[in-house]
Amino acid sequence: MRPRQAAMLSIPELIRKKRDGRRLSDGDIKAFVEALTSGSIQDCQTGAMLMAIWQRGMDPRETATLTKEMMLSGEVMSWPEEWAGLMVDKHSTGGVGDKVSLVLAPALAACGCKVPMISGRGLAHTGGTLDKLESIPGFNIHHSAEQVRAILSSVGCCIVGQTERLVPADRILYATRDITGTVDSLPLITGSIISKKGAESLTALVLDVKFGRAALFKDLGGARELARLLVTAGNDLGMRTGAVLSRMDAVIGRAVGNSLEVIEALDLLKGDGPQDLMELVATLGGLLLAMTGMAADQSEGRRQISQAVIGGAALLKFQAMMEAQGVAKETARTLCSAHADYFNVLKKAEHQLDLTASRDGVLIDVDGLTLAEVVHKLGAGRCKAGQPVNHSVGAQLLLSLGQKITRGTPWLRVHYEQPAPSPDQIERLQSALVLGSDADWQKQSLVQEVMLPD
Amino acid sequence: MRPRQAAMLSIPELIRKKRDGRRLSDGDIKAFVEALTSGSIQDCQTGAMLMAIWQRGMDPRETATLTKEMMLSGEVMSWPEEWAGLMVDKHSTGGVGDKVSLVLAPALAACGCKVPMISGRGLAHTGGTLDKLESIPGFNIHHSAEQVRAILSSVGCCIVGQTERLVPADRILYATRDITGTVDSLPLITGSIISKKGAESLTALVLDVKFGRAALFKDLGGARELARLLVTAGNDLGMRTGAVLSRMDAVIGRAVGNSLEVIEALDLLKGDGPQDLMELVATLGGLLLAMTGMAADQSEGRRQISQAVIGGAALLKFQAMMEAQGVAKETARTLCSAHADYFNVLKKAEHQLDLTASRDGVLIDVDGLTLAEVVHKLGAGRCKAGQPVNHSVGAQLLLSLGQKITRGTPWLRVHYEQPAPSPDQIERLQSALVLGSDADWQKQSLVQEVMLPD
Repeated sequence: MRPRQAAMLSIPELIRKKRDGRRLSDGDIKAFVEALTSGSIQDCQTGAMLMAIWQRGMDPRETATLTKEMMLSGEVMSWPEEWAGLMVDKHSTGGVGDKVSLVLAPALAACGCKVPMISGRGLAHTGGTLDKLESIPGFNIHHSAEQVRAILSSVGCCIVGQTERLVPADRILYATRDITGTVDSLPLITGSIISKKGAESLTALVLDVKFGRAALFKDLGGARELARLLVTAGNDLGMRTGAVLSRMDAVIGRAVGNSLEVIEALDLLKGDGPQDLMELVATLGGLLLAMTGMAADQSEGRRQISQAVIGGAALLKFQAMMEAQGVAKETARTLCSAHADYFNVLKKAEHQLDLTASRDGVLIDVDGLTLAEVVHKLGAGRCKAGQPVNHSVGAQLLLSLGQKITRGTPWLRVHYEQPAPSPDQIERLQSALVLGSDADWQKQSLVQEVMLPD
Repeated sequence: MRPRQAAMLSIPELIRKKRDGRRLSDGDIKAFVEALTSGSIQDCQTGAMLMAIWQRGMDPRETATLTKEMMLSGEVMSWPEEWAGLMVDKHSTGGVGDKVSLVLAPALAACGCKVPMISGRGLAHTGGTLDKLESIPGFNIHHSAEQVRAILSSVGCCIVGQTERLVPADRILYATRDITGTVDSLPLITGSIISKKGAESLTALVLDVKFGRAALFKDLGGARELARLLVTAGNDLGMRTGAVLSRMDAVIGRAVGNSLEVIEALDLLKGDGPQDLMELVATLGGLLLAMTGMAADQSEGRRQISQAVIGGAALLKFQAMMEAQGVAKETARTLCSAHADYFNVLKKAEHQLDLTASRDGVLIDVDGLTLAEVVHKLGAGRCKAGQPVNHSVGAQLLLSLGQKITRGTPWLRVHYEQPAPSPDQIERLQSALVLGSDADWQKQSLVQEVMLPD
């Protein structure tokens, strides 16, 4: 005989329970998510429940249950038995110039992992990995679970969009949160991120939780709190989950904009990319390899990742992934060849404008948020889901933080088409680059701390 | 040149503003109500906003603006100039056995007032004045503004339902609040009640705010807080508004159930009704007459109302009102004649069951909530808006509080059809009547206090 269960609460009762700050039981949360997925809840009730959750929060158990029930609302991917222990992925909370995935996925594949990376598109000021990849002619991000399995079998990594069948509850909640002022709720963020990764049936997951001027969280404390929730929820779903707290004040690398970031990622895969990007890739990948047990510890993992990048194995994986995802052999080969002229393949913006330093000094700061916002307005990003982006628009820092320059030196190249940057936008870009003296400059690592599973 | 206005916020921005506990400006609230009425807001946003208001509240200025904008969302009634100063109405927060309106409206008309009373239907355990009146064959509660003016001109009072054109924003909010756990929010209750009364363009309004076991507010403090908000919002709309805080623990009068309450009201209009009901009618009416200036003060007003009831003028008004609202002349005359056999006209329930006292004692308490809940389940009330009610079902106390009785004396008559009361329901009814000794019994007035405009 099954144990007697408490009578199921109606949706208004569930809303009042959370409204009053009481814990929702596992059954309550299951009922809510099922009502979402079946469409039996009314939209106004979804809005009210999300606002009640925003106001009252959820404890770790509620958050874990929400995450699990969201994951179970749709298809959960399955993998061949021989891949057990090899399935890994990364999620970032969103940065400026964040092309980490483009390097990390092939590097992990080169180390023997299977990486069924499901990425998103850009919204607001942060870019999206799928938009970046689509600046490569032919790159197709739409693949079924079957096709993903085939690409992982032949290549080891792919970067694709979410299918309709994965976590349908999240699609509803995400769209509703966006227009009801309930985006920035830690349990709702956790449910959204981890349910989707849970549906990938991963061995290990690493989260790049960003803090700083250009991040969702301005301070380390808030980011750490989210990271803790994400790590707990991921481990609760049976994935070894860790997090890296990384600084997001300036720009990761030097390029912002879809095709410009692909170029920078390719440069790194050829051993000629920015150090800060390499460090972040190695830290995230090293942590994953350590969590799967494929490396003895994090530093061994970092070494393996660095070797895969520097030695060129990751570049070959990237090339194979492009081909497997629809890019013509010749195009992929051109992009991956030494001394490639990228703009033979990628579309170059019609206009380039080099801004120059107004005085002598040391570049001590770059305001990544301002840079991203202007580039976004110039067409690199979208204001509404579904809008197209202009892949060729972007900006490139022509020097690195800490570098000494003289007045008149070009320091930022703006790639634009329509609209052209306004005088006001040019002034904002100029003010985003800050000059000081040697004494004002101190090199800081992007990686602030690493959070391991308990 | 008009003064420069702040840019209008989008709906998500308005929601976030209230979510964070900030004041909504007059313009913000106007935009919200206009979005409701035009249908440009999405349902999930309405739900989220209502929950944010529930959580964060509204200050008196926000509440007043919400009330005014709701009122302005539809038709606002207008009256002939010669009625200026005469327009009055009452609103009750809902009681058990509350037939006050049936007596008060004609009594006020007999005193020279114009009473365009817009009433509601019962939901949950409290009855609705419209349901009670519809137990009279032919009584029609649907009248246009034109027809209301005509009835007020000839009779002086009418009791009708809300038209589609009055306060459309309230219909949307009311339906949404009902299913999103946001009913019991003081600013939302205030907006809903006062906007509808404001649209009646009244000179004076009195509110019967109930507290106690069978009321929305169990304690006097909560009721007083609502009364203060209602009084302020009413006066802000230009109506002289006062409130009576009245006890709602037992039953008003002795009858619960639609046609049984009509009978009790008619008995009072013939000078033979329960004292507590008469007291409440006189207090509410006296306050209205004082506020309009038609009586020098409240006690003079009470005297006028009592005289109208005892002298039979109110009964004649009730008779005329019935005829004006569709009741056949003969039916109205029968109901209003001395020694009428009411059940010649009103439908009597098929079955009556007299419950008897299980021991000797003094009736010291009646649990009005339990009584109402059982009668509701037997068909006197509805669980969902739109359901029909059984007008003949109800219960009558056969004795008064404080009365001494012996074991076996009939003390409660249950009028039922289908379903019959279950053993459990009979036990609940029996336990709702409490016996004690003389020492346990103290007569208490229903009227606790009167709140005047500032």
